[in-house]
Amino acid sequence: MADVDIPALREKHPDHWMKAAALRMLAVDAVQAANSGHPGMPMGMADVATVLFEKHLKFDPSRPDWPDRDRFVLSAGHGSMLIYGLLHLTGYADMTIDEIKNFRQWGAKTAGHPEYGHAKGIETTTGPLGQGLSTAVGMAMAEEMLRARFGRKVQDHYTYVIAGDGCLMEGISQEAIGLAGRQKLSKLIVLWDNNNISIDGEISMSDITDQKGRFKASGWQVLACDGHDPEDIDRALTEAKKSKKPTLIDCKTHIGFGSSKQDSAKAHGSPLGDEEIAKLRDTYGWPHAAFVIPNDVADQWKAIGERGAADRRDWEGRVAELSEQRQKEIARVFALEAPKKLSARIKALKKQISEEAPKVATRKSSEMVLEVVNPIMPENIGGSADLTGSNNTLTADLGIFDEKNRKGRYVHYGIREHGMAAAMNGLVLHGGIRPYGGTFMAFTDYARGAIRLSSLMGIPVTYVMTHDSIGLGEDGPTHQPVEHLAIWRATPNTWTFRPCDTVETAEAWELALTSQNTPSCMALSRQGLPTLRTEHKNSNLTAKGAYVLAEAEGKRQAILMATGSEVEIAMKARDLLQEAGIGTRVVSVPCMELFAAQDESYRRKVLPAGPVRVGIEAALRDCGWDRWLLGERGRENRQAFVGMEGFGASAPAPTIYSEMGITAENVVEKVKALIA
Amino acid sequence: MADVDIPALREKHPDHWMKAAALRMLAVDAVQAANSGHPGMPMGMADVATVLFEKHLKFDPSRPDWPDRDRFVLSAGHGSMLIYGLLHLTGYADMTIDEIKNFRQWGAKTAGHPEYGHAKGIETTTGPLGQGLSTAVGMAMAEEMLRARFGRKVQDHYTYVIAGDGCLMEGISQEAIGLAGRQKLSKLIVLWDNNNISIDGEISMSDITDQKGRFKASGWQVLACDGHDPEDIDRALTEAKKSKKPTLIDCKTHIGFGSSKQDSAKAHGSPLGDEEIAKLRDTYGWPHAAFVIPNDVADQWKAIGERGAADRRDWEGRVAELSEQRQKEIARVFALEAPKKLSARIKALKKQISEEAPKVATRKSSEMVLEVVNPIMPENIGGSADLTGSNNTLTADLGIFDEKNRKGRYVHYGIREHGMAAAMNGLVLHGGIRPYGGTFMAFTDYARGAIRLSSLMGIPVTYVMTHDSIGLGEDGPTHQPVEHLAIWRATPNTWTFRPCDTVETAEAWELALTSQNTPSCMALSRQGLPTLRTEHKNSNLTAKGAYVLAEAEGKRQAILMATGSEVEIAMKARDLLQEAGIGTRVVSVPCMELFAAQDESYRRKVLPAGPVRVGIEAALRDCGWDRWLLGERGRENRQAFVGMEGFGASAPAPTIYSEMGITAENVVEKVKALIA
Repeated sequence: MADVDIPALREKHPDHWMKAAALRMLAVDAVQAANSGHPGMPMGMADVATVLFEKHLKFDPSRPDWPDRDRFVLSAGHGSMLIYGLLHLTGYADMTIDEIKNFRQWGAKTAGHPEYGHAKGIETTTGPLGQGLSTAVGMAMAEEMLRARFGRKVQDHYTYVIAGDGCLMEGISQEAIGLAGRQKLSKLIVLWDNNNISIDGEISMSDITDQKGRFKASGWQVLACDGHDPEDIDRALTEAKKSKKPTLIDCKTHIGFGSSKQDSAKAHGSPLGDEEIAKLRDTYGWPHAAFVIPNDVADQWKAIGERGAADRRDWEGRVAELSEQRQKEIARVFALEAPKKLSARIKALKKQISEEAPKVATRKSSEMVLEVVNPIMPENIGGSADLTGSNNTLTADLGIFDEKNRKGRYVHYGIREHGMAAAMNGLVLHGGIRPYGGTFMAFTDYARGAIRLSSLMGIPVTYVMTHDSIGLGEDGPTHQPVEHLAIWRATPNTWTFRPCDTVETAEAWELALTSQNTPSCMALSRQGLPTLRTEHKNSNLTAKGAYVLAEAEGKRQAILMATGSEVEIAMKARDLLQEAGIGTRVVSVPCMELFAAQDESYRRKVLPAGPVRVGIEAALRDCGWDRWLLGERGRENRQAFVGMEGFGASAPAPTIYSEMGITAENVVEKVKALIA
Repeated sequence: MADVDIPALREKHPDHWMKAAALRMLAVDAVQAANSGHPGMPMGMADVATVLFEKHLKFDPSRPDWPDRDRFVLSAGHGSMLIYGLLHLTGYADMTIDEIKNFRQWGAKTAGHPEYGHAKGIETTTGPLGQGLSTAVGMAMAEEMLRARFGRKVQDHYTYVIAGDGCLMEGISQEAIGLAGRQKLSKLIVLWDNNNISIDGEISMSDITDQKGRFKASGWQVLACDGHDPEDIDRALTEAKKSKKPTLIDCKTHIGFGSSKQDSAKAHGSPLGDEEIAKLRDTYGWPHAAFVIPNDVADQWKAIGERGAADRRDWEGRVAELSEQRQKEIARVFALEAPKKLSARIKALKKQISEEAPKVATRKSSEMVLEVVNPIMPENIGGSADLTGSNNTLTADLGIFDEKNRKGRYVHYGIREHGMAAAMNGLVLHGGIRPYGGTFMAFTDYARGAIRLSSLMGIPVTYVMTHDSIGLGEDGPTHQPVEHLAIWRATPNTWTFRPCDTVETAEAWELALTSQNTPSCMALSRQGLPTLRTEHKNSNLTAKGAYVLAEAEGKRQAILMATGSEVEIAMKARDLLQEAGIGTRVVSVPCMELFAAQDESYRRKVLPAGPVRVGIEAALRDCGWDRWLLGERGRENRQAFVGMEGFGASAPAPTIYSEMGITAENVVEKVKALIA
């Protein structure tokens, strides 16, 4: 503690000191009451957070969803009590003192890590390190996009992030800072809690990176300040706003500030203990009981919370002067409402496709859909992790988003799947944007950390995952997903679409683009597929998850269930079976999750008891098939699965299909054996 | 092509030129023959690779597994024809010209991306970008560790990597270079194929990072060379070896060198076409037919391949002078053979535990096992992604591995789950090491890219994944895995252990530590669990995957299946059911994959038809349960599952269990309802 002179700090800025002490003690007391949590970080960053909220952050607790507020992201989410304290003290109505007292308890808004949707003012879920920082990059991109679209009067705000060493050590942070640096996101300001400590001990045990040099190398402005000196913090924040680059502020801080555990990993993740806390009250000059904020301090914080109302009213005034149509459009995109025209456009495309019956890969089908919807959905922002031509994600009307063209609606995310996924989370969380982004299905693995948060937060990001099976061919097993559908389908609140043709692809996109709370995965083929839905239907059959694509002729003896590129194989097998006098129904299953959500009577209609069942998918059976083959009136000795039994191989796709036995002939054989 | 003067290059270094041209043309012709592949990168990096193999790489094609060879990793795995060409030309017996001609065809060793185990000389599977570089960090660590253990006479080699912009843009690369910089891996040399092009176009479309500044910031030496000037390449490689830091060599190259598609993304990933190739033969001065290497060039390459035999023989001589015991130990660890004592140690621990019956978390159980086995397995290298105290991965005898203590056997990987997993792949691939590393189970998501490669390559890395359910409590849903068992269990060639007590944990570790081709996941609890295996058995019951832990008394009416922390709940439910006169068997299922691998008769013995079945696991049913409940003689209306139905919540663990209904009482209710 040699370089920390608390009496001097208290004397120099007494008002600031007490405001920050309020934050510190709320954190310390809440963690103690919960007997669980992370006091060290809020204690270290309280000064920075106080100055940020007092002098810089544009926000209005009475209107937490005000679209032009500054965004504040606590990337170091384990320090959750810092944000809960800030929200409580500045007057967010739902963050009561009882919530603080119930920190980390069942049903409280004050979860262990900040959870989006639990309380107002939590802009994104954080905790998995690096995610907040990377999500904030998306928020800052959204601000640029919407400013370009609606003008500075409507959108003109900053995005602030508090990040720790853990955030900066995670690989995703490099993807995020690379993207932000390239895109010159000058309104993104990252406050680095440089306390030199991680859970295992001093940072130097595992890292010697010169973070400032690293950020500079990726095109950032880098500043520094004493994280316990309010004037210095204010100076750095003021300076940060002037740059044409994103800014990192190195805030030199002390974890567990003022306690005997200061500057030690011991301050990170456990309660300080009653004795230590008693001493701390002394050190801080904070004689108040736990959870008690004296009126003078409470009033000062309340005033901070009221500071933004004028800005917000000005903004409302400016928006009220816009045309009614403009106002409605702003409201529409921030409400994630699809345009009324969407349904008609999708229907028209479906009708046309059913008539023309093209044979195209579903990645191409997806592009055909996007060509139709992107022009009427200016909120759609596309992109790819450097596989634009393979993912078919760029449509003619979009234009490329960069520092020269903020109206561009297509993002070259670079070879950064994880950063792309997190940025898409940020785009949708910011409001006003509906993002989609592409990579190869196998690279789900690189982006899972952020994909999971889409599902957990309940936000409609669309993942365009092409090359979705061994159908990718020669690139081989590293690029051939076989198990990835398992994790997509197992993840709660996620729709995994694997459409069989352009019609189903259009239906899947309609669902994704009207979703308000559920992310979607589009598992799309590399290889060409025939149009199977040649009879036009207005209704969206994919919305049921599974449906009868072809009914059995004669006595129904077999049901073939298939998804995506294997529905073609099921249809061929049906032809052969019908020829052999075996009545065969084909059930297309574009979305298992939506099928599971149908009521029993519909599921029974599609999958009645009696006929033998064969599931067909160029993936492992473990990807959710047992339920549909063994359950739902299925029987163990009356079912089979035709698919993968291990990793793929490198060869032309038709060869792999044939070698792996994923063929109509094999399906026929299986059905005959089951019936015999 | 302004800065490329091919005639001058040909004239200045005619021998070098032809050797490199051989590599280039093999790549160009093989891609053309396959009508698939990536010619641009081998064309660009042929000069660098030629100089590396001719003048620096220590290798012997006649003994590809020589433990002291330099390791060469083609991280930019799409350029696979570069390594296939090198292996063929230098005389690796299995890399015949027919293999080259069969590039990317079924059954060929020349898969689309280099696959470990397909051909000798492929040190690791690459293709998913960034993996090779990050795996090489583990190889370089292994060299340091083994040099410290066995001496410079036994281990003293370099690890070379060719990496592209894609590798450097992936987040994992930051984790890898941070780890390598911190660990001062001076014998790691990365050759950056700086060609300024990615699939979508120029790198500047998505990245403006000053890579040299970035590497310097993480503690690397940074050099540069003209990637088409053999003298300059040689100079840089010579210089690189002198540093006490890892070295990045910025090799300025031209993708698609010499073709009309040079310096363009068009050269990256598709055949050049016959016309273009004809012109290229002219440009290169290479009139030979496809796949024909003239004798003089072939002889020069053969000489390069023969250069290392003397070194290898010297090494063999030095090793032969070691004590017999030493020689046996070296052979043992490179063969991944467990010491003979292991089995006895595990049995003794099991016996002791069965008698003492402690109540501990299985993460603590895991530590108890490691305390017993680490002293007799010096090849065990532990570590954690900054959660040492939580993962219980550090035992007393290990010591910390760093630049001051190369004999240390514990790695502080930092907050780098993905980098840790890739480094562990490298540690085991290098040979002589058996690594394990810990993080929270939920952060499987961060490391999947590398975990999948453990399974695909078939290498016995052990992932210590603690805090494996809602039992983690207050940290909340971001930290609570509910779906992760699905991807672990669905991934081919992976053992997912979820032991219920210390005895099962010891058995699981015994299997992991004797595995030669399969990675293991240890899913371990945060919360304390009673010892359930109180009757000592010498045999490893976990090896069967599932077994009868407690037999029904009286008529067997119910079977409860559970894993890990929920076996305790099953046993409590059994007590209640037996009290109610319902004969109940409890089946513990520590490893579904191993149970699935048992023969039908064993599975039938454990899961006979008849009794109702209830599965219990604090995870989603989608994690593989349907097979055991609906299949294996199960029946739809005679089974139920007690577990999670969505994401978790933040609260003390017992509260979450009770709120989610994962209780003995709920199991009893389900059984009674099924029987009624």
